[in-house]
Amino acid sequence: MLRLNKKERMRVWENVMQAIEVYTARVAEHRVTPQLDPDAIRVRLCRFDFQEALDPGRAIDFVVENLWNQQVHTPHPSYFGLFNPNPTTMGIAADTLVAAFNPQLAAWSHSPFAAEVEMHLVRAFASRFGYDPASCDGTFCSGGMEANHTALLAALTAQNPDFGEQGACSFSAPPVVYVSSEAHHSFLKAARVSGIGTRAVRVVPVDERLRMNTAVLQDGIEKDRREGYLPVMLVGTAGTTGAGVIDPLEELASIARDHNLWFHVDAAWGGAAALVPELRPLLDGCEQADSITFDAHKWLSVPMGAGIFLTRHREVLLRAFQVVNTYMPKDATGLPVIDPYAHSLQWSRRFIGLKVFLSLAVAGWPGYEEAIRHQSRMGEALRVALRARGWKIVNDTRLPVVCFTDPNCEEARHLEAIVAEVLRRGEAWISTALIGGKPAIRACITNYATTDHEIEALVATLEKARSAATKDSKDLKDLKDPKDK
Amino acid sequence: MLRLNKKERMRVWENVMQAIEVYTARVAEHRVTPQLDPDAIRVRLCRFDFQEALDPGRAIDFVVENLWNQQVHTPHPSYFGLFNPNPTTMGIAADTLVAAFNPQLAAWSHSPFAAEVEMHLVRAFASRFGYDPASCDGTFCSGGMEANHTALLAALTAQNPDFGEQGACSFSAPPVVYVSSEAHHSFLKAARVSGIGTRAVRVVPVDERLRMNTAVLQDGIEKDRREGYLPVMLVGTAGTTGAGVIDPLEELASIARDHNLWFHVDAAWGGAAALVPELRPLLDGCEQADSITFDAHKWLSVPMGAGIFLTRHREVLLRAFQVVNTYMPKDATGLPVIDPYAHSLQWSRRFIGLKVFLSLAVAGWPGYEEAIRHQSRMGEALRVALRARGWKIVNDTRLPVVCFTDPNCEEARHLEAIVAEVLRRGEAWISTALIGGKPAIRACITNYATTDHEIEALVATLEKARSAATKDSKDLKDLKDPKDK
Repeated sequence: MLRLNKKERMRVWENVMQAIEVYTARVAEHRVTPQLDPDAIRVRLCRFDFQEALDPGRAIDFVVENLWNQQVHTPHPSYFGLFNPNPTTMGIAADTLVAAFNPQLAAWSHSPFAAEVEMHLVRAFASRFGYDPASCDGTFCSGGMEANHTALLAALTAQNPDFGEQGACSFSAPPVVYVSSEAHHSFLKAARVSGIGTRAVRVVPVDERLRMNTAVLQDGIEKDRREGYLPVMLVGTAGTTGAGVIDPLEELASIARDHNLWFHVDAAWGGAAALVPELRPLLDGCEQADSITFDAHKWLSVPMGAGIFLTRHREVLLRAFQVVNTYMPKDATGLPVIDPYAHSLQWSRRFIGLKVFLSLAVAGWPGYEEAIRHQSRMGEALRVALRARGWKIVNDTRLPVVCFTDPNCEEARHLEAIVAEVLRRGEAWISTALIGGKPAIRACITNYATTDHEIEALVATLEKARSAATKDSKDLKDLKDPKDK
Repeated sequence: MLRLNKKERMRVWENVMQAIEVYTARVAEHRVTPQLDPDAIRVRLCRFDFQEALDPGRAIDFVVENLWNQQVHTPHPSYFGLFNPNPTTMGIAADTLVAAFNPQLAAWSHSPFAAEVEMHLVRAFASRFGYDPASCDGTFCSGGMEANHTALLAALTAQNPDFGEQGACSFSAPPVVYVSSEAHHSFLKAARVSGIGTRAVRVVPVDERLRMNTAVLQDGIEKDRREGYLPVMLVGTAGTTGAGVIDPLEELASIARDHNLWFHVDAAWGGAAALVPELRPLLDGCEQADSITFDAHKWLSVPMGAGIFLTRHREVLLRAFQVVNTYMPKDATGLPVIDPYAHSLQWSRRFIGLKVFLSLAVAGWPGYEEAIRHQSRMGEALRVALRARGWKIVNDTRLPVVCFTDPNCEEARHLEAIVAEVLRRGEAWISTALIGGKPAIRACITNYATTDHEIEALVATLEKARSAATKDSKDLKDLKDPKDK
């Protein structure tokens, strides 16, 4: 029942491959957004009490139908969303091979090829970010959250070798961490779950360009020291989630050095700029970071999730994570290798790196360079088209995140009504976000297959949605204030 | 370059499917173990500098060849290892669909089907463990490490609502956690990374049956209270990694209740016994646990990694993990749903649950019942065969983990030499482990496809390896002590 017979397997592979081909070929013709109805899904799932075996073909049909109808289609060229990509063909192939060969990355000796591929990639990416590949280290993670959590643990361990054994109370003073108000909230979660608490996170305001305000930062560090806190880590973001902004990394590196802080760069999305010569200077300073988060499942377009944590301190991961035990295989004793489990938050885990390896091998750096450049150009095309139609761009970045408002009405309610109308129509996925504390509409080119055609269609859809929202709010106003008539 | 053209994709799917079919059909004829040679792998990987695009077929061939030659084959029927399974066909199909449709589980509204499937499974498994599915909660995790870490965070948050904001120093006294000396070391890692430190972990000795010694536990709790510590969590293991032993769960539940401790059951592997009527009573007491870890990528044989965290406290995950933010989609505001990211350690993540859903839908509970029963029978067959050849079984469990020694010589060196010889021959994978502090050889039936044939072959291989090791140690002794001749 668990490994089907050959005939059944052949049918399963055929069903799956056909489903994927149809999805790849036709997703662009489909609505981007689902109708949200939890009860409808729950009713359909109720039939699955697992009392009886179901035909494999019917099971796959059920799943495929519901994936078509009940998700935002991140592979859709009109998905202008949250850094979720259109997955690479080689990435899909890799996840399939990984599932079938099922290597397990805990002890090196169990999966030498998998472990070495991941370390090869760690060095390759480290090198692109300006680290010395000969002396760096890193690990693949479930995603950016785990990578940023790893960064915090590395910083705490580097500052206080007793952290692992004695815990957060063994610091000489309460540790504090600096992020900008535009940084990813995973640092708040990391602070919660690593025992320093969210109160340890100092949220530094941003300047008018939405970059961390370094004057306020410096004052904050000095104030914290005076008040008996222990500054431990400074986070620079390279490509904020909201507005695609890059903090002044060189300046942050210098401040971190002056104050003996662990400098971490969260380049989960924007790090891909390192692969394009004309964008690479935006990341200057990241080579001075003590650690870097980079998510291959964002701009490198591999399937979820492939976080990468990089550090130029070779020993810190072992210091942070190594736990002695008696039952792990010792076959590799004496070999110059690292056991993955001694090196990351996870214990046994899947071979995350293969989807990156196969995608990168087949596209090469040049293929990725072209894809990233293309998306950046599409971002610029969207900016130009929006301005031409009288929208106002409110963020300042060369990366393809475009935040904008309707200058006729910048109220959150109006912008949310526009977005709701776009989602209702199903022609694109966009969202609202608070950018520097103010509401805006946000559209990001996350898909390498997005062309001018989808950019034009998005702007047309936005125009219709703006008209509808403007009319609605006028009608509403007329209804509410009849005396104004 | 990232999404190949249709012709190239067809070739990729064909290559991948053929590789999987060949692997499925022929892995049993292959060596189980690789020759460990890091340099040889590194030399082959050196060619991959990614400067040029590689043909997709050649890239897949390279990976497949190296997966064949450079990993322990956990899907091999003679892999008697560390709970790593032979992956289900439907699990492989599911991971392929997940990679292609690439749903992202962060906001519910982005992937309603995926989010609801996972909650449906959470309730289904909770129900099998004796929880009330109407009032339980849970989340899928990267693996057992994340699930056990989640349990610790849930316990800390339940005991101290300030933990998330104020951190580990906000406890009225240093928190402590109890595990047995046979428990999984992920609790040590969880303590390291959650800021209470490994010193907070009290390792309770086991009785002669390798179960947590409850008398020592009770004394320990009382002593800790007297000395100003705050007992927070008690962990019972249902199926220890080393010896497959189940702690006295009902007694532990009662002790936890008396002392106001969060009772967590780590049933990562052994939890599957809940699916087999004659084994179910072994888990009695787990329904009283505050939380349970169960890994579907162990005995349910789905591909790595599919950890499941279950709790009967509906609010605790939100309390532990929710972080307010401004950029997550709000489309589902007002609907009776939970955003996955507000509910787990991870933020955006892959659709982990689909491989469990499709495997379970096609096998049904009856299919899994049969597979688990079969493996338990094979464990018993191995015990009988080993005893018949004069080996000594040193653990006491009804689950298929068999720990044994050579009564002629129980020294670690001798047992390790036997295991090394088995691995060298490549006919099976087994390991040594410390069981109750004493060295033993460990063989676990992890594969639903393992039959009497592989059991007999393992025993025959062990006999040869014992002879070789005995001869070697005699030769060595003769060499060392020539005067004894």
